[in-house]
Amino acid sequence: MVMKVYGNLMSTAAMRVFAALYEKDLEFELVTVDMKAGEHKQENFLALNPFGQVPAFEDGDLKLFESRAITQYIAHEYAAKGAPLVCEGKPMATVAVWMEVEAHQFDPVASKLQWELVFKPLFGMAVDAAAVKENEAKLVKVLDVYEARLGQSKYLGCDCFTLADLHHIPTLTNLMGTPLKELFEARPKVSAWVADIMARPAWAKVLAMRNKQ
Amino acid sequence: MVMKVYGNLMSTAAMRVFAALYEKDLEFELVTVDMKAGEHKQENFLALNPFGQVPAFEDGDLKLFESRAITQYIAHEYAAKGAPLVCEGKPMATVAVWMEVEAHQFDPVASKLQWELVFKPLFGMAVDAAAVKENEAKLVKVLDVYEARLGQSKYLGCDCFTLADLHHIPTLTNLMGTPLKELFEARPKVSAWVADIMARPAWAKVLAMRNKQ
Ligand SMILES: N[C@@H](CCC(=O)N[C@@H](CS)C(=O)NCC(=O)O)C(=O)O
Ligand SMILES: N[C@@H](CCC(=O)N[C@@H](CS)C(=O)NCC(=O)O)C(=O)O
Repeated sequence: MVMKVYGNLMSTAAMRVFAALYEKDLEFELVTVDMKAGEHKQENFLALNPFGQVPAFEDGDLKLFESRAITQYIAHEYAAKGAPLVCEGKPMATVAVWMEVEAHQFDPVASKLQWELVFKPLFGMAVDAAAVKENEAKLVKVLDVYEARLGQSKYLGCDCFTLADLHHIPTLTNLMGTPLKELFEARPKVSAWVADIMARPAWAKVLAMRNKQ
Repeated sequence: MVMKVYGNLMSTAAMRVFAALYEKDLEFELVTVDMKAGEHKQENFLALNPFGQVPAFEDGDLKLFESRAITQYIAHEYAAKGAPLVCEGKPMATVAVWMEVEAHQFDPVASKLQWELVFKPLFGMAVDAAAVKENEAKLVKVLDVYEARLGQSKYLGCDCFTLADLHHIPTLTNLMGTPLKELFEARPKVSAWVADIMARPAWAKVLAMRNKQ
């Protein structure tokens, strides 16, 4: 039975899961959840994720939600396929640090900026300039840490591409379409890392899937 | 060489790490970081955690930060000691879902409420009633999901106590000292779970360490 992802191609959280599946060369079926119609708050979907958020995921009998838990499952369960995405023992402890950094330092700030600068304009809503300013200052601090880190290892977690990098890609791609692009490009190591991870063939497949819709 | 935790006993993030170490019956040294004196933003500490937050951690040559990455390292590296805290294979995938739920659904809301209702009063700062109201409504939704989940399994991740439960304890303990206690007590399964995880001998040791200071 083919794996199922419940979500859609506007959701950065769902895109994390698609990217992991393509990195592993795994077949899957996208079951589109129409969020405009409020499908994610209806009973059928709440049985898959009681928090009413996409993505949700099924592999046979196993039902999961929360994008980063799904990518970890894919990486461990299909360890032998495609790109490694995780490692073992002490090196994994450091990869886990940078996975936490994405979740607790990068994502809260990047998601707010994405909301203000990508989604609000799309929905014709007014941008909150104070929120942009506040979060831009926070993003600068995070990128300064990344610039130093990427001087010590090729990718954030270690010298290989892992989930610590992959989890950034969807929101990063959206921010690169805003004036904040300059903040990334002003830092040579960050800039090279962004170019590298956005150029992954797996990510090209996610974008192609989106553009086909 | 004994493990070192850089932090202090006011920090809920550091307390997560102490709890994991006591669950595993591991010896460690607390290196106190004086946050009032701004030690966490000074060069020595920034070399341990470039984001300038406690806790940071050392086990021999390995240096880690981010509380949930440290607890995962402790759980995996010292798998044979004390309480299991994690499991393997498919059951672990579900534990990982609930670890993500703590990090992305519970903690952002609980941390804001803790700031308003525990730390601001302590520092003599004015409470933002609108922020309390907004986050209280969000907490209610999270606790409703927990009540349903705890009808399916004894703990959040599975029938055993794991990191998915442990990560809640410090902030939960602080919230139980506020009027929000009622929200937890109004839900029988949540209430039993809170009582159970707060009564862990390892947590009693963390509180004893705090009270000794
Ligand atoms: N922490 C969750 C976040 C998921 C999330 O925020 N999904 C958004 C779309 S990207 C959503 O469903 N929002 C609707 C809502 O929160 O009501 C994850 O990583 O899966
Ligand atoms: N995500 C981090 C959060 C750590 C954190 O917020 N630590 C607080 C004390 S509980 C801190 O050091 N705050 C000072 C600051 O952020 O400048 C973790 O889990 O370790």
